[in-house]
Amino acid sequence: MSKEVNSESVSLCPLSTAAATEQEMLCIFGTGDLGRSLGQRFLQTGYKVVYGSRRPHSCGPLPPGTQAMSHVAAAQSARLVFICIHRENYDFLETLAPQLKGKVLVDVSNNLKKNMYPEANAEYLQRLIPGAQVVKGFNTLSAWALQNGPSDANRQVYVCGNSLEAKQAVIEVAAKLGFTVLDRGSLTAARELEDFPLQLFPEWRLPLQLATGLTAFFFFYLLIRDVIYSYVVNDKDVSFRIMASLANKVFPIVSLIMLSLCYLPGVIAAFLQLYRGTKYKRFPDWLDRWMLCRKQLGLVALALASLHVLYTLIIPIRYYVRYRLAAHTISQIRENKTSPFDTTMAWRTDSYYVIGILGFGLYLLLGITSLPSVSNILSWREFSFIQSKLGYLTLFFCTFHTYLYGWDKFLQPSSYKWFMLPGYMLSLVVPSVVLVLKLLLLLPCVDSTLTRIRQGWERTDPEQEHKKLLLT
Amino acid sequence: MSKEVNSESVSLCPLSTAAATEQEMLCIFGTGDLGRSLGQRFLQTGYKVVYGSRRPHSCGPLPPGTQAMSHVAAAQSARLVFICIHRENYDFLETLAPQLKGKVLVDVSNNLKKNMYPEANAEYLQRLIPGAQVVKGFNTLSAWALQNGPSDANRQVYVCGNSLEAKQAVIEVAAKLGFTVLDRGSLTAARELEDFPLQLFPEWRLPLQLATGLTAFFFFYLLIRDVIYSYVVNDKDVSFRIMASLANKVFPIVSLIMLSLCYLPGVIAAFLQLYRGTKYKRFPDWLDRWMLCRKQLGLVALALASLHVLYTLIIPIRYYVRYRLAAHTISQIRENKTSPFDTTMAWRTDSYYVIGILGFGLYLLLGITSLPSVSNILSWREFSFIQSKLGYLTLFFCTFHTYLYGWDKFLQPSSYKWFMLPGYMLSLVVPSVVLVLKLLLLLPCVDSTLTRIRQGWERTDPEQEHKKLLLT
Amino acid sequence: MSKEVNSESVSLCPLSTAAATEQEMLCIFGTGDLGRSLGQRFLQTGYKVVYGSRRPHSCGPLPPGTQAMSHVAAAQSARLVFICIHRENYDFLETLAPQLKGKVLVDVSNNLKKNMYPEANAEYLQRLIPGAQVVKGFNTLSAWALQNGPSDANRQVYVCGNSLEAKQAVIEVAAKLGFTVLDRGSLTAARELEDFPLQLFPEWRLPLQLATGLTAFFFFYLLIRDVIYSYVVNDKDVSFRIMASLANKVFPIVSLIMLSLCYLPGVIAAFLQLYRGTKYKRFPDWLDRWMLCRKQLGLVALALASLHVLYTLIIPIRYYVRYRLAAHTISQIRENKTSPFDTTMAWRTDSYYVIGILGFGLYLLLGITSLPSVSNILSWREFSFIQSKLGYLTLFFCTFHTYLYGWDKFLQPSSYKWFMLPGYMLSLVVPSVVLVLKLLLLLPCVDSTLTRIRQGWERTDPEQEHKKLLLT
Repeated sequence: MSKEVNSESVSLCPLSTAAATEQEMLCIFGTGDLGRSLGQRFLQTGYKVVYGSRRPHSCGPLPPGTQAMSHVAAAQSARLVFICIHRENYDFLETLAPQLKGKVLVDVSNNLKKNMYPEANAEYLQRLIPGAQVVKGFNTLSAWALQNGPSDANRQVYVCGNSLEAKQAVIEVAAKLGFTVLDRGSLTAARELEDFPLQLFPEWRLPLQLATGLTAFFFFYLLIRDVIYSYVVNDKDVSFRIMASLANKVFPIVSLIMLSLCYLPGVIAAFLQLYRGTKYKRFPDWLDRWMLCRKQLGLVALALASLHVLYTLIIPIRYYVRYRLAAHTISQIRENKTSPFDTTMAWRTDSYYVIGILGFGLYLLLGITSLPSVSNILSWREFSFIQSKLGYLTLFFCTFHTYLYGWDKFLQPSSYKWFMLPGYMLSLVVPSVVLVLKLLLLLPCVDSTLTRIRQGWERTDPEQEHKKLLLT
Repeated sequence: MSKEVNSESVSLCPLSTAAATEQEMLCIFGTGDLGRSLGQRFLQTGYKVVYGSRRPHSCGPLPPGTQAMSHVAAAQSARLVFICIHRENYDFLETLAPQLKGKVLVDVSNNLKKNMYPEANAEYLQRLIPGAQVVKGFNTLSAWALQNGPSDANRQVYVCGNSLEAKQAVIEVAAKLGFTVLDRGSLTAARELEDFPLQLFPEWRLPLQLATGLTAFFFFYLLIRDVIYSYVVNDKDVSFRIMASLANKVFPIVSLIMLSLCYLPGVIAAFLQLYRGTKYKRFPDWLDRWMLCRKQLGLVALALASLHVLYTLIIPIRYYVRYRLAAHTISQIRENKTSPFDTTMAWRTDSYYVIGILGFGLYLLLGITSLPSVSNILSWREFSFIQSKLGYLTLFFCTFHTYLYGWDKFLQPSSYKWFMLPGYMLSLVVPSVVLVLKLLLLLPCVDSTLTRIRQGWERTDPEQEHKKLLLT
Repeated sequence: MSKEVNSESVSLCPLSTAAATEQEMLCIFGTGDLGRSLGQRFLQTGYKVVYGSRRPHSCGPLPPGTQAMSHVAAAQSARLVFICIHRENYDFLETLAPQLKGKVLVDVSNNLKKNMYPEANAEYLQRLIPGAQVVKGFNTLSAWALQNGPSDANRQVYVCGNSLEAKQAVIEVAAKLGFTVLDRGSLTAARELEDFPLQLFPEWRLPLQLATGLTAFFFFYLLIRDVIYSYVVNDKDVSFRIMASLANKVFPIVSLIMLSLCYLPGVIAAFLQLYRGTKYKRFPDWLDRWMLCRKQLGLVALALASLHVLYTLIIPIRYYVRYRLAAHTISQIRENKTSPFDTTMAWRTDSYYVIGILGFGLYLLLGITSLPSVSNILSWREFSFIQSKLGYLTLFFCTFHTYLYGWDKFLQPSSYKWFMLPGYMLSLVVPSVVLVLKLLLLLPCVDSTLTRIRQGWERTDPEQEHKKLLLT
């Protein structure tokens, strides 16, 4: 920024970092753990660091090479002031307002839990010192990252603030420290940034609870039906089946149900829009929440489907299976009879496996395209093609796979032990309903109405529609 | 930032959006579906919204809390004007040029198909109102995202425009709405942005068509050779083999051919450069197009290879295989003979499987490194090491796997039913050619010439080269 | 950009790209390969290009449509000057300092190896011509990308420089060329940018060497123990086991050891902090280096674990296994005895497989969350939950899987051939130690002390702590 040197108005643009590249001074308020970690990192990157402290002469061990001053003196020696103080102690900063005027205050604070205060820490700080330019930032990093530089989950720094120039100065520092910076806009985003480090998979909670619940239910259901029934009625101990055979029934059942639950809310929403005749009424809250966790539902279901695949592939190396196959061969020899080759059986089982493989392959594709970096490069049309068209195809394949598994078992009385339906039948209810409803929606007359509604048409007010066409 | 021109206090902090953070006013032209969705979202984020309409008093249901005015009045009340009007109706905006002077016009329009108009909508808008600062943006989002905020494939917003400040203002709004913004430069990028929502996997089309074609060809070829031949000549119905056995031949064949087609264009290009003695002549168009879809070719081949792996792993749980194994054991017993253990056979089949596994493992690695987020963190040297060196190693492993599969089958007359070569032989042609050509290129004399050509040396004009060395 | 309004010297800031959108002129110094490639690309994007050359009339074939001038004339005709000259020839640029004053110089140079010069090329250039605004950029791209536009690993361009405006101008050009630009801050980052294209997986070297070393050791160890022992003592040739059976022992052993080596440094660090009573002393260098390559250690181990899974799943289709199973069945029949079904055996082997599957599933999850795009969207708390909590669970599952594999083999004398322990026992040492140490750290008294230390408490200086509480 060579011009600035020429022009008279130097004082107006103190932001120029050009002149200050060598050994710029940064100020840190607060000599606690966070302040010390941050200071150490600044030093390593080549900055000079000064601490502002209430008792500059007795504030404990600071990183060697830094010095502590009074808040006033420290603030005057640097353009950027990092506020490493708990929010409860912010109020004394108000007295420093004259010294902090025009400074960039970087608020790195976090709270212990959400919604502790009516306004975000950074907004509170800005209110206390209106003359300063407050930037929220660095708070999403761990202390480890602040001390040691970026790594993996700590590569990104979010900043927000009302002054572009102040943000640019903070971004410069963050970039020098090796972080990738994402600008989140004005200071109103501060609350979001302050909530970010507190979250622990909020959107995964419901799908995981659902998966746990369903898994537990089907586990005990099948435990009774397969193991306990066999023990009580046939007096046979097949408890070893719990480990692999039973789990390999529970996982695909829960996976299929959860996959269909990904598509159910979309179908419900479509029928709701058809019924209301407009898309401008909000959906009920439960439907909104449901729709927002569809991705997580699908990924949990994919994880269970993957377990099902692995459990299935180890079948032939299991002791129990090998024993049974050998026993079958031996009994055939001893009884000197040969079971003929059953072509229908070959067709049926091969189809069953192949449809399962194709369904799983498509499912993996859905999973890969929901990786952030992949979905980011897709246009909306491409994303919706995959997640909707290929998604329904996946659901169809997986449902069909289960029907083929069942085949004619529903005819055999032995399937209804203690009047309990086999697990696979229960798992077919939701997906079948979803597929039938989706087929209804694809009927030309229904589809065209729905399309018109989604393009903004409203049934209830026909004259409105006419005007809109004129006006837009 | 028109205020700067009007107000006196420009000099102090004109960039600061601080004064405007609370309840900034945004103007939307057009009360159609898009305008209403956008307005609703703005309201939810904390903006005030005013609509510009031809008939402000009869423009239909607007989001509660907004108001409609004439275009002139609406334009004057806000700094940012979102143009939610179809391009066909842009011309009336010319009459508003005085009111729109200095405003930031955000063009969110899309067309129904590519190349409908000679210039991009945003460029047309800029030409109509030269005094305004046109920014193209938000058009890559779905209506759903505009209404409900970002999610997955709708997290990124692209903007472009000639004015940095105007773009910055739009980026602020987008960031407040929760989107990640990518600046695509000046307004000349507008066409690209307008084409983006219309595309549906353009670069995947050729590879998918090729895969479909090859799959169909080999399916019918092997159908005739394996199933129909058996039916006609041996009068044996082995049609059940279609589902799994036949598919498990078609998939690896097509996969291997497509993998080798990834590397063929590179080899052709190298020989073309050697022949021409320069790298400054353009490649033929077909070669350029081919090279641009190598990644997609490889990923489709990887998908087919994965299917091959799954099809192979279910072999031992298939009814047909179990039946055949048991029948073999039973026949050994009944005829009271024992086939001795064949060490060569053990070596050969194990090698065959292991080479296949290693090839597939490398292949997966290639797939993972072509994920956008992974390839982004690789330096060019690393990326080319993986995609070229490891790529050829993968091709070699997969080809070798196929040769081991064949082994001495080419000696057996039974392999040539109806004079049709076995499928695996056909699949070996292209990869073998590619590997041999690549070996030729690795010969020291050829390699050094090629390296010099790629560093800019030209055979045809030796004196030129001399000068270049002096000058650069 | 407030200055422009105030200062007289508006004409000095020609950076406004708005006026210059059509056919902006770019200047390139150097007519070598790099300069020509770059110029060709600029032309294709719609820029005008002028070359600066020592001998403008005999500088060889330039892209058609460009022209060559003297350096002085070329520099005056454009605002951005791309320096495509080797660093060794930079010194003559000093004579052009007057003409280059106020220009943006884009340094695209790279060196042949790291640390060839005491300062980065771009910093050297800035020192030579202090009046210019040097921006480092484009150097991370391959010549291919410069010539043909972005693709995959070449989508990102890094820039750094001291002048915000100069950087913005370069970013504009890069964005028009289709690249995504990452601003790496001031010119001090230039060295990092210049080193980037030279690196070839630096952080993967140690883990890969370790994996190779361990694999080689265990391969020869097991070769002696399984194959050579059998040949010498039993005079039986089981060399065919090398391909699959032996590898399927080596891979899981090395994988388990490497997985536990991911967690060992964290445990050592914790004990070191406990012993020192502070977290403010630096760890020894070897520990730091170790901790920095944990991710790579884990991913290499995951690759080996995946191979182990595939090797295990092909077991039932191997000729050797099928032969042995059939032979076992045949011998049972001939000897007319039946081995009874062993429920304990069924429980044990099923548990062994299932624990292995669950461990592998968790392991895959760890691998997926270490993809850059996934770890970027995780908060630090989430990332550490997965990598630490789930990581230890994975280690526990995999270790338990190995213990179940061993079961009571340690009681059988046949396990100690030639006094060599079985491989699985050796593989259990490190993971068992890590798990026991981790358990110690989870003891409430140890855990609370460690937590306090990590929050900044120091044992050695109790009064210090008191002061800190007062001050911060």
